[in-house]
Amino acid sequence: MVIGRNAVIEAIRSGRQLDRIYLDTKALGQDINEIKGLATQHHIPVNYVPVAKLDGFNISDHEGCVALIAKVQYHDLQEIISFTVEKGETPLFLILDGITDIRNIGGIARTSFCCGVHAIIIPDKGVGALNEDAILTSAGALEKIPVCRVNSLMKAVDELHMNGIKVFASEMKAAKNLYDCDFKEPCAIVMGSEEKGIYPALLKICDEKIKIPMKGDFESLNVSVATGMILYEVMKQRS
Amino acid sequence: MVIGRNAVIEAIRSGRQLDRIYLDTKALGQDINEIKGLATQHHIPVNYVPVAKLDGFNISDHEGCVALIAKVQYHDLQEIISFTVEKGETPLFLILDGITDIRNIGGIARTSFCCGVHAIIIPDKGVGALNEDAILTSAGALEKIPVCRVNSLMKAVDELHMNGIKVFASEMKAAKNLYDCDFKEPCAIVMGSEEKGIYPALLKICDEKIKIPMKGDFESLNVSVATGMILYEVMKQRS
Repeated sequence: MVIGRNAVIEAIRSGRQLDRIYLDTKALGQDINEIKGLATQHHIPVNYVPVAKLDGFNISDHEGCVALIAKVQYHDLQEIISFTVEKGETPLFLILDGITDIRNIGGIARTSFCCGVHAIIIPDKGVGALNEDAILTSAGALEKIPVCRVNSLMKAVDELHMNGIKVFASEMKAAKNLYDCDFKEPCAIVMGSEEKGIYPALLKICDEKIKIPMKGDFESLNVSVATGMILYEVMKQRS
Repeated sequence: MVIGRNAVIEAIRSGRQLDRIYLDTKALGQDINEIKGLATQHHIPVNYVPVAKLDGFNISDHEGCVALIAKVQYHDLQEIISFTVEKGETPLFLILDGITDIRNIGGIARTSFCCGVHAIIIPDKGVGALNEDAILTSAGALEKIPVCRVNSLMKAVDELHMNGIKVFASEMKAAKNLYDCDFKEPCAIVMGSEEKGIYPALLKICDEKIKIPMKGDFESLNVSVATGMILYEVMKQRS
């Protein structure tokens, strides 16, 4: 934990990766404004909480501001894209939309690392901190695979597009079968949650919708298994 | 629960599916011998327990014998094979060796049902009762897909062989890639546990060993995800 306003400001400025900042809803002052600005700039989620929550951390002098140090190193999406291209590899990204359970993210990270995904892209809101549980579920993969935390998945897709990366959306009702798609080109795959699927506006800007063909009408694959099937198809085409 | 010696004998004779029989280690008598014989004949696991365990169920008059009614309907392997062939379908079975966690079995059942697996084959020893937790993890699939509980996976493979069904073993160190195999013929796939893999004697009688090709040296797919990738390849070839 980083405790206190100045300590948090210094931590962000020195490039320390933070998972989350907790601010007292009633905290005011120039330093608080500075923290908000830096948080936005560095894609660090801010939780506004009653002071009792901060008191509950059992630390003194928190000054209405506490930050959690990240267990996972977050990366800049554009940097990862450039790095991948410079290495001469064909970019492969995974975008997780609405998959909030950190153990699901851990499981998917494990598969992604095995399948050569270059980075996992997650939103900075609605996802729990990638803590030790997540790392355990990932069998350590979350410490190896780059994670890009972005404040808008829409913007991330735009960024992928600007880099010539095609974005596929996994959707049960899609017309096109997984194995009829060409994954040899630079691409990213969007996985939605099992309950809600992909956010409509995000789905709309994806280049192609793909489905995993199933037997019968019991179309209810676990999102981690579905991700595995898609990444297997990509790996196979690229091998 | 079925409580008492005669009640358990009657339950088995009437075809009621039982998950497990608990017998007082000290129980004796002709009826106890009969229960043991019927249990063997119907592949029902018997746990020999101190009488205190039976007393702990808070029931009176258990006579040293209590049975748990199965939540999942178990099927006879040969009957399922015959039924599948008669329907004109190409048999596809999944054998789980050493996968003892019932939630893993539930997850695999979910994927299996989506992928048209005709039955899951599990051993009657070392696997917990397929209870409500397992059914929940399977998203209900365990109530739909047939489960064959056998007292020897070796014998089950023999039975598959006698029916002309080829048995593939999933093994990380196999030479042959998953996508170089022909799954259009009747087949079964053996999945081992993540820790121990497949039991050597069982591995030996399998017809072919297959691996899922991975990127890099982090070869650590979750067994449920690995099963999904294999079943996807089978589905794809058969579509």
